[in-house]
Amino acid sequence: MKNAIVAQSGGPTAVINASAIGVINGILESNYYDRIYGGINGIQGILDNRIIDLTNLDINQLECIKYTPSSFLGSCRYKLKDCDEQEEEYLRLFQILDEYDIHTLFYIGGNDSMDTVSKLSEYAKLRGLNKQVIGIPKTIDNDLCHTDHTPGYGSAVKYIVTTILETYLDFNAYSNKGIFILETMGRDTGWLAASGVLAKINGKAIVDFIYLPEIEFSPEKFLKEVEEKYKEQKSVYIIVSEGIKDSSGEYFFGVNSTDHDAFSHSQLGGVGQYLKKLILERGIATRIKTFELNIAQRCSMHCVSDRDIEEAFILGKEAVQESVEGYTGFMIGIERLQDNPYKMQTFRVDASSVANNIKHFPAEWINEEKNNVKSDAIDYIAPLITLSQDLSIDSGLPEYFCLEKK
Amino acid sequence: MKNAIVAQSGGPTAVINASAIGVINGILESNYYDRIYGGINGIQGILDNRIIDLTNLDINQLECIKYTPSSFLGSCRYKLKDCDEQEEEYLRLFQILDEYDIHTLFYIGGNDSMDTVSKLSEYAKLRGLNKQVIGIPKTIDNDLCHTDHTPGYGSAVKYIVTTILETYLDFNAYSNKGIFILETMGRDTGWLAASGVLAKINGKAIVDFIYLPEIEFSPEKFLKEVEEKYKEQKSVYIIVSEGIKDSSGEYFFGVNSTDHDAFSHSQLGGVGQYLKKLILERGIATRIKTFELNIAQRCSMHCVSDRDIEEAFILGKEAVQESVEGYTGFMIGIERLQDNPYKMQTFRVDASSVANNIKHFPAEWINEEKNNVKSDAIDYIAPLITLSQDLSIDSGLPEYFCLEKK
Repeated sequence: MKNAIVAQSGGPTAVINASAIGVINGILESNYYDRIYGGINGIQGILDNRIIDLTNLDINQLECIKYTPSSFLGSCRYKLKDCDEQEEEYLRLFQILDEYDIHTLFYIGGNDSMDTVSKLSEYAKLRGLNKQVIGIPKTIDNDLCHTDHTPGYGSAVKYIVTTILETYLDFNAYSNKGIFILETMGRDTGWLAASGVLAKINGKAIVDFIYLPEIEFSPEKFLKEVEEKYKEQKSVYIIVSEGIKDSSGEYFFGVNSTDHDAFSHSQLGGVGQYLKKLILERGIATRIKTFELNIAQRCSMHCVSDRDIEEAFILGKEAVQESVEGYTGFMIGIERLQDNPYKMQTFRVDASSVANNIKHFPAEWINEEKNNVKSDAIDYIAPLITLSQDLSIDSGLPEYFCLEKK
Repeated sequence: MKNAIVAQSGGPTAVINASAIGVINGILESNYYDRIYGGINGIQGILDNRIIDLTNLDINQLECIKYTPSSFLGSCRYKLKDCDEQEEEYLRLFQILDEYDIHTLFYIGGNDSMDTVSKLSEYAKLRGLNKQVIGIPKTIDNDLCHTDHTPGYGSAVKYIVTTILETYLDFNAYSNKGIFILETMGRDTGWLAASGVLAKINGKAIVDFIYLPEIEFSPEKFLKEVEEKYKEQKSVYIIVSEGIKDSSGEYFFGVNSTDHDAFSHSQLGGVGQYLKKLILERGIATRIKTFELNIAQRCSMHCVSDRDIEEAFILGKEAVQESVEGYTGFMIGIERLQDNPYKMQTFRVDASSVANNIKHFPAEWINEEKNNVKSDAIDYIAPLITLSQDLSIDSGLPEYFCLEKK
């Protein structure tokens, strides 16, 4: 009897369940495993023996889960201590896996989860335990190293850019226009905010400024840029990442900046409101609207990218295949073979080299003034969003009309 | 030579352009009119002679505009004074219409716009001018009298309820759940907030409380209700309308409550943050998240209801037909003939009886505790949202899966 378990960790995405279903599908099709279990609330729930049998989910349930956003098994942010610091948890975890005859743990998550994959697989090797621990990437932040991109990013981008197009049209309906500030997630990296470069109407880019965490944020420079643009256009559309930082590298502003999770990450948000206050105090404009996209950007299945959901599924399934061949301690990643037509393949990378590392938005894709993104980034991002709706579309995005008004 | 003009007013919706295209389509198919003009930024732009010829838009442009959110002609919030107070504007307006040989003005908007329709048509009658002025309803607020519902409402509901389903799944992914507060628009009425009653997962309603502007809001009662529910479930999902009012009938809270538009409407928003503060101060829970849906709820074409867009189009087209028969000073409305299968027809109603009036959410659809909506409202709302995407769906909404966790 050789069983497997799948669990999910970290912030949910629209397609994290597609990866879990990919694992389940791979297990059910393999002759290598007998049963597939689910760990509730990630590693934390497995330690509490909260484990359910997923082997007999029917085909309709599997299909419905694949298209359900968020982590259907529940999630956690649980930091495993080093084994020489506290071996007890490691002993308990592998004892519980033994109880269920579980040979392989598939863990879907971001760089913190790859830390867990790395620690558990190293411990198993150290103690000579015949167990495999395998990581499957997910994060809307797209900040994992080695993999070309992460499942979850494409759908988040599709939701963000669609919302930019729609709010731009709405905000500019009145003759008294003003300044619109859209706040995206992105604690450490600007991948989400940068996707605004894809937003075009009548073939013209509509986002005036994009402020990324990779660039030190200067309020004085910001106000000067916005003031000039407002004088020129009477309408300014700004995207700001929640993670912009000041000259000392501290997060610039966060409503809840005193809250920290188990990994010492700040709970951010509210930077848009702060920028609004700066603009009002300077007296640049009177009509200023902020919109914080909030968790909608990581769970908007209704705006999912078909390619994203399929890749998430494939990674889960391929992870099972690699496990059958005996590999452990790796994360399954995406290698891009070409942009147009887009082609990818999967590959293995040591989980330890992904763990706790961050892939920043490339400096060469940031413009000279450091307040926007070059169109070079479009070739990278655009193939990740594809159609899953019946609106008139252009490369997976709605195609809208904007009248040249006199 | 007999021409027509179409213009848009008030807050945009996802389907206000479909009504404009309905008018254009009706004009082009009629033998009654020669040319169709567009007034830029509503009555305000017409007064400034900002008028463009729409007669030669091609079929692809018309189709693209129909599926573009927001007001493609631009909008305004312009209050026409009574003609005995200031006749000058009336004289100027009809003089401009004469310059273009415009016989009929089609004005798409809410109750303020019907005030404009009523005033202009009355003035034309008073002065014996051979002009027609006709109103076409639009507002996501669904607060216009006489018409069964307003174009724009169905798509806003579809976006709101879809977002409720998705954020509910996301927010409850962690074992440490908490309190989620979703803030909808709805200055005077609870139609938008009430739509949360449609949000079901695994057949069970997921919204615990809905606070409507129709019910006096008591912070003490609110805190008691939330505290009890949180103790019982460890997870509470709340919807609040931006327009909730205190015992003296004043808006309870608005970040920008000192701002007023030309119609003296408060610019609301931020009530969710205020409720969060109340809950934190009472120490009920530590994880509290607020999400203000902002203008996305009125422009999310990517989540449009097919029935909504088709009805918006039909109303525009039927308004033209009624104009050909010589009627003026009316708003074209929707009469519901039956729920299942849904059937409607259009009818004329005096614009003056719609102007400046408000249709409230019915008291009989509010529960006894006055903190939620009865399922009776579902029969009314559900037929207004229909499919326009290829996700697995249930009555126009995504069908998601939620695991019963142990």
